[in-house]
Amino acid sequence: MARAEKAPLRIGVAGLGTVGAGVVKLLETHGRGLAQRCGRGVVITGVSARDRSRDRGIDLGEAEWFESAVALASSPSIDVFVELIGGESGTAKDTVEAALRAGKHVVTANKALLAHHGVELAALAESSGVALNFEAAVAGGIPVVKVMRESLSGNEISRVYGIVNGTTNYILSRMTHEGRAFGEILADAQAIGYAEVDPTFDIGGFDAAHKLAILSCLAFGTEISLDSIYIEGIETITPADIEAADDLGYCIKLLAVAVKTESGIEQRVHPAMIPKHTAIAQVDGVTNCVALDADFAGGVILVGPGAGANPTASSVVSDLADIARGLVLPPLIVHTGELKPYQRAQMREHEGGYYIRLSVYDRPGAFAAIATRMAEEGISLESIVQRRAEPPASQVKPEGRGTPTPVIIITHRTLEAAIRRALDAIERDGHVDRAPQMIRIEKL
Amino acid sequence: MARAEKAPLRIGVAGLGTVGAGVVKLLETHGRGLAQRCGRGVVITGVSARDRSRDRGIDLGEAEWFESAVALASSPSIDVFVELIGGESGTAKDTVEAALRAGKHVVTANKALLAHHGVELAALAESSGVALNFEAAVAGGIPVVKVMRESLSGNEISRVYGIVNGTTNYILSRMTHEGRAFGEILADAQAIGYAEVDPTFDIGGFDAAHKLAILSCLAFGTEISLDSIYIEGIETITPADIEAADDLGYCIKLLAVAVKTESGIEQRVHPAMIPKHTAIAQVDGVTNCVALDADFAGGVILVGPGAGANPTASSVVSDLADIARGLVLPPLIVHTGELKPYQRAQMREHEGGYYIRLSVYDRPGAFAAIATRMAEEGISLESIVQRRAEPPASQVKPEGRGTPTPVIIITHRTLEAAIRRALDAIERDGHVDRAPQMIRIEKL
Repeated sequence: MARAEKAPLRIGVAGLGTVGAGVVKLLETHGRGLAQRCGRGVVITGVSARDRSRDRGIDLGEAEWFESAVALASSPSIDVFVELIGGESGTAKDTVEAALRAGKHVVTANKALLAHHGVELAALAESSGVALNFEAAVAGGIPVVKVMRESLSGNEISRVYGIVNGTTNYILSRMTHEGRAFGEILADAQAIGYAEVDPTFDIGGFDAAHKLAILSCLAFGTEISLDSIYIEGIETITPADIEAADDLGYCIKLLAVAVKTESGIEQRVHPAMIPKHTAIAQVDGVTNCVALDADFAGGVILVGPGAGANPTASSVVSDLADIARGLVLPPLIVHTGELKPYQRAQMREHEGGYYIRLSVYDRPGAFAAIATRMAEEGISLESIVQRRAEPPASQVKPEGRGTPTPVIIITHRTLEAAIRRALDAIERDGHVDRAPQMIRIEKL
Repeated sequence: MARAEKAPLRIGVAGLGTVGAGVVKLLETHGRGLAQRCGRGVVITGVSARDRSRDRGIDLGEAEWFESAVALASSPSIDVFVELIGGESGTAKDTVEAALRAGKHVVTANKALLAHHGVELAALAESSGVALNFEAAVAGGIPVVKVMRESLSGNEISRVYGIVNGTTNYILSRMTHEGRAFGEILADAQAIGYAEVDPTFDIGGFDAAHKLAILSCLAFGTEISLDSIYIEGIETITPADIEAADDLGYCIKLLAVAVKTESGIEQRVHPAMIPKHTAIAQVDGVTNCVALDADFAGGVILVGPGAGANPTASSVVSDLADIARGLVLPPLIVHTGELKPYQRAQMREHEGGYYIRLSVYDRPGAFAAIATRMAEEGISLESIVQRRAEPPASQVKPEGRGTPTPVIIITHRTLEAAIRRALDAIERDGHVDRAPQMIRIEKL
């Protein structure tokens, strides 16, 4: 808190895409205020990007241009290396390692890098006594990393969950409000740049899984384990599911959930039905949220923009401000040597039960056969309701099988393996004209 | 990040009520984990409270008992003084001042003290080079102070608003879900300890105003100005208002709002209609939320428990963890010498318009007279609807005046002074049997 002039913090920025340009713009706009708040200036002294000639509409001032990002990472002219290159390996990893080895603090927005190599990079930061900050890597502008790393220091966290992918939430929100099909909305989202040309990484749940792997490590003090995450995307969600959910008092969201159980950690990303009258159900469009169940603080929910140049830049600058203020903490909250090994939870009952939509040939005995398969697996049903017919999957009506009609089943809590076995049996019995839809109902 | 054993941080706790006991319990439960995260232990070495003999169900270990809280505040045996006495002056203020003067860091949960004396206490902390942390003073377990002080360092904030009083939110939530009257629910809330015997401080909006005064200072870098806050409580809200709001797509919440306008800062606490399909509308019961409009981060909302021993203890310990980690920041984000004087905003149009409920004598010309009064003040109406009758305020039906019938008026954006003049005129005209109800519709 001494008010004497401190030397400015010197930043090297590698990667001048949307986020990089956002960081430059933010420092241009709020540089003075930031210096006032941190007690020292934050100045970009070096930059590196693929194409020097591209007009990015930003003023790089007196920053030195580096053809090599690795050279920038270990340059004596910087104190902090900001990695905005992206990718789980290659240049991003090389530069971050070079910077940490050279004793530079590192700020990164790279979730893939952290989900794959977070522990080894954190160990490197610790051995060099520098910061490795990554607020921007999870949920964009939402300050969840800092809240977990600092604000909840006096808590044990039992669950972390949320909506951490903007593309899927945007698509599901529009499907909900417009009643249109997944494919149509996806095409729209691609046209306006809310979904990639190859949307698999987002809609398949993989982006959310990367973020969950990081959140899970911060929440439970366990090693990062991306491969242990059960992942399901939103591709199979239909307007019929959304409508049925609405009737039942739920909405459908792609949820990322990590829970601490007696047998280990359960991590999953999948579409889930959540009660309409919750704050999270109202998180629409590209907005994200992260909820934490903490033993003393209680249930804390953070909502905000999950992506975009400005929110992400705000998080990068928050990380820089911490370093400017001299705050250097173990990147993963506890020292890497004290992280517990990741122990995958054993199969357990899903508390909220299941929603199952079957397209059943409307003929005598079908209901009974389905109910019997459920009973054989010890699954207790809350309701089984026939709804009005959808167009059949095939235009040719199968001989003597009746018209396929949607049947919605809600189960009580049960083992997921039991549900899967029952659905396999129902499919084998030939009562349904397509694969069953199964969506977990989430207790929040 | 050095892993060498550092001396533990020595804490003196004054006040062993609910929150004080919660802090002791938290440190008992999570002391080891906290030490691991902070790189040093956090140990209670001194305590002081009114009654030494009372059984609080907590283990005070080897902490020294101080008969005088002021003596504890400046004792050489502590590094941090935790003030949990409460009250805007008296012992709370004396001890905090004594501690700061003696070069002790201070952690407090005392919103009244800060709302009244925050700037002078912050200046004292600055001149002693110590921390004055108060995460627990605003919105209990929600880490909003730290988010504003650190995470949003690279942002200009244009608005901060939220639900920051649990008692009123609990009462309004139950009125909404149960359709019962204010007085009944208040009595229930008092019976279960959710409302004080004298509930004025909460239901009148004064508690929310204290918190808003602090949030406003943090958001805009202006001096704390509790007296400038426009305050209205929830006493006049009726089930009819809640029902009409619901029909219109809104719910009614006691909102605390501070906005930066061209002419200065607008601070207000009052019941507001907010759209049902927002995350904030779903913040029910004793839960609180704070929303921040930040220019780079975007709209960030924090939701969590607004009070209670454990959430408040979590915030106190978060403040202690910061100090244990060596983080000492200007308490009010910028140095007190750099705070701007508080400039009250000029009267301006309320963007969301107004809801007005009149109890009108049902006779020819009443509607026309009311609409004319509105027109005279230049108020543009969105709708004017007569609803089914309520019981009249008086059992005696006034001669020749017709039965009083509720009329709901929704206005477009307009000046509040114009609304007040129009309502005064309508009341003077004798068309209504009781004072008009006016609720601001809030654009979120």
